[in-house]
Amino acid sequence: MNNKTATPVTVIGLGRMGQALAGAFLKAGHPTTVWNRTTSKADQLVVEGARLAPTVGDALKASSLTVICVTDYKAMHELLGANDIELDGSMLINLTSGDSAQAREAAQWAEQRGARYLDGAIMAIPSAIGTAEAVILHSGPQSDFEAHRSTLDALGTVTHLGTDHGLASLYDVAGLAMMWSVLNAWLQGTALLRTAGVDAATYAPFAQQIAAGVAEWLPGYAKQIDNGSFPAEVSDLETEVRSMAHLIEESEAVGVNAELPKLIKAMADRSIAAGHGGEQYPVLIEEFGAGR
Amino acid sequence: MNNKTATPVTVIGLGRMGQALAGAFLKAGHPTTVWNRTTSKADQLVVEGARLAPTVGDALKASSLTVICVTDYKAMHELLGANDIELDGSMLINLTSGDSAQAREAAQWAEQRGARYLDGAIMAIPSAIGTAEAVILHSGPQSDFEAHRSTLDALGTVTHLGTDHGLASLYDVAGLAMMWSVLNAWLQGTALLRTAGVDAATYAPFAQQIAAGVAEWLPGYAKQIDNGSFPAEVSDLETEVRSMAHLIEESEAVGVNAELPKLIKAMADRSIAAGHGGEQYPVLIEEFGAGR
Ligand SMILES: NC(=O)c1ccc[n+]([C@@H]2O[C@H](COP(=O)([O-])OP(=O)(O)OC[C@H]3O[C@@H](n4cnc5c(N)ncnc54)[C@H](OP(=O)(O)O)[C@@H]3O)[C@@H](O)[C@H]2O)c1
Ligand SMILES: NC(=O)c1ccc[n+]([C@@H]2O[C@H](COP(=O)([O-])OP(=O)(O)OC[C@H]3O[C@@H](n4cnc5c(N)ncnc54)[C@H](OP(=O)(O)O)[C@@H]3O)[C@@H](O)[C@H]2O)c1
Repeated sequence: MNNKTATPVTVIGLGRMGQALAGAFLKAGHPTTVWNRTTSKADQLVVEGARLAPTVGDALKASSLTVICVTDYKAMHELLGANDIELDGSMLINLTSGDSAQAREAAQWAEQRGARYLDGAIMAIPSAIGTAEAVILHSGPQSDFEAHRSTLDALGTVTHLGTDHGLASLYDVAGLAMMWSVLNAWLQGTALLRTAGVDAATYAPFAQQIAAGVAEWLPGYAKQIDNGSFPAEVSDLETEVRSMAHLIEESEAVGVNAELPKLIKAMADRSIAAGHGGEQYPVLIEEFGAGR
Repeated sequence: MNNKTATPVTVIGLGRMGQALAGAFLKAGHPTTVWNRTTSKADQLVVEGARLAPTVGDALKASSLTVICVTDYKAMHELLGANDIELDGSMLINLTSGDSAQAREAAQWAEQRGARYLDGAIMAIPSAIGTAEAVILHSGPQSDFEAHRSTLDALGTVTHLGTDHGLASLYDVAGLAMMWSVLNAWLQGTALLRTAGVDAATYAPFAQQIAAGVAEWLPGYAKQIDNGSFPAEVSDLETEVRSMAHLIEESEAVGVNAELPKLIKAMADRSIAAGHGGEQYPVLIEEFGAGR
């Protein structure tokens, strides 16, 4: 990218993630202003061409776009909350991790202070920032996202989820739940197979295939949830629960932890007790607690 | 396939699954003998060309290959256990669901009775039998599988996992654990997103992408398990646990069931308590209970 046309950017917060973000902007040719409570964390970035602002206020003034990435929302409010900090006219993108309520509150706060605000969530580790592998989710006004999209592109694969500022946090934790669940199911299977002397590398491609295969069902199953109707086209919960019992028995018989299988079965049992034994798996959405 | 060259096959047990198996053999042109305790369940198959054997013994004698699919191993032993039933020289493929210990016991029993024996597990519903979608796992002597592979091909995508007769059951329940885990994580995310008015169809492609993406990590993570060494190349458990806390807080804040997130965190917490906080996620294999 060309230095002369690239948009100036400010990065506030230079922990492991903030340093990676500022580094990616610099690498993409954006004139980059940085600020951090502990000044020394800017040293390497200054060598790479960043400008260190003396105060948070100066950092905000230096660019029309400011990315914030600190420990939590409390730190963000401590940093930017003081009344003498001029936010009017600023465009803030907050990539600090938090929950959807914090994101919505921060959006209101920013609006009151005259700033435009997007909330974001980083689904990547610092070393991936600047590559397509780094997925960065944004939520808030679409026009603000579009206006800065080409700048944000320097950070990775950036997406806009919707105008509700809480969406980035919600998608983030939902995605993490999927990640840990796939990993735990794989560990459960790996532990089971190891009792028969099968090594993890031999089992992994099977687990990979099942996970990817089941993932393909999700859009179809989603339709059942949106329609609130769960005909047992493939299999009913009663049948599933019998196989769940097999999984528990097999795990216990070979000395593998059965907590995960037991939770799976407990949730299905409850759904059957609620009268859904003849319906299909997605009817369990009711056990996860979101009303129809 | 040509009737003149196709191998004769016997199917014992004509429940929903046994009928589908016999139907697929018939469709592929195999001369098919059937037997069921309740004779009427053979009626439709006889119309389609099956031969109904008067006794189990006759059914076994009719073909060099017999596929058994009944409710459970107990039913299988009740059917074939009597001493007057001639098993010597038979090739039995048992597709009845059970656990790895039952499969190994059945293999010993068959050997004592002079029969060759493969154990199998059907990862499909009856209507998928006869299509590539129906995955049927086999374990036991490789040569027996190879000898009958072309016949078994009529049933779906057939695979041989290894000589240990317990493997088909183990892979089966491991695969089911993955299936339910992907579905539950997707339901958790769907419930979270619904609190923000996002419908299931909008969220599903995101969940699908994460599941398929994480599945690709498994072969690499498997190497850490096989090496018994878990360097935190991507992220350490301490960092993961902080995000797990976010998932729990977010779920509780929006009124979504947090049991699954809490189990995920409890297992990671235990691993950290055991001294693995600086290691990578697959170190949790120890919590799943298979010793190194
Ligand atoms: N690292 C990752 O893999 C990763 C991945 C995805 C998301 N995230 C998220 O990114 C955010 C930052 O993470 P990180 O890894 O960069 O954390 P980190 O290395 O611990 O850095 C924390 C940053 O926050 C600043 N800070 C904390 N409290 C402050 C306060 N009261 N006032 C001013 N500054 C304060 C720190 O300033 P000092 O330097 O002065 O202490 C530092 O810049 C977190 O929300 C994290 O969840 C991180
Ligand atoms: N259906 C599926 O979606 C599915 C999927 C994967 C695996 N499987 C497995 O396939 C096996 C059969 O399932 P299915 O769906 O076909 O069950 P099913 O429709 O309930 O049929 C059970 C079969 O077992 C026979 N049987 C039970 N006890 C017996 C006994 N003591 N003596 C003789 N015969 C006995 C029944 O004979 P009668 O007709 O005389 O009662 C019938 O043929 C099970 O192990 C199941 O787990 C099924």
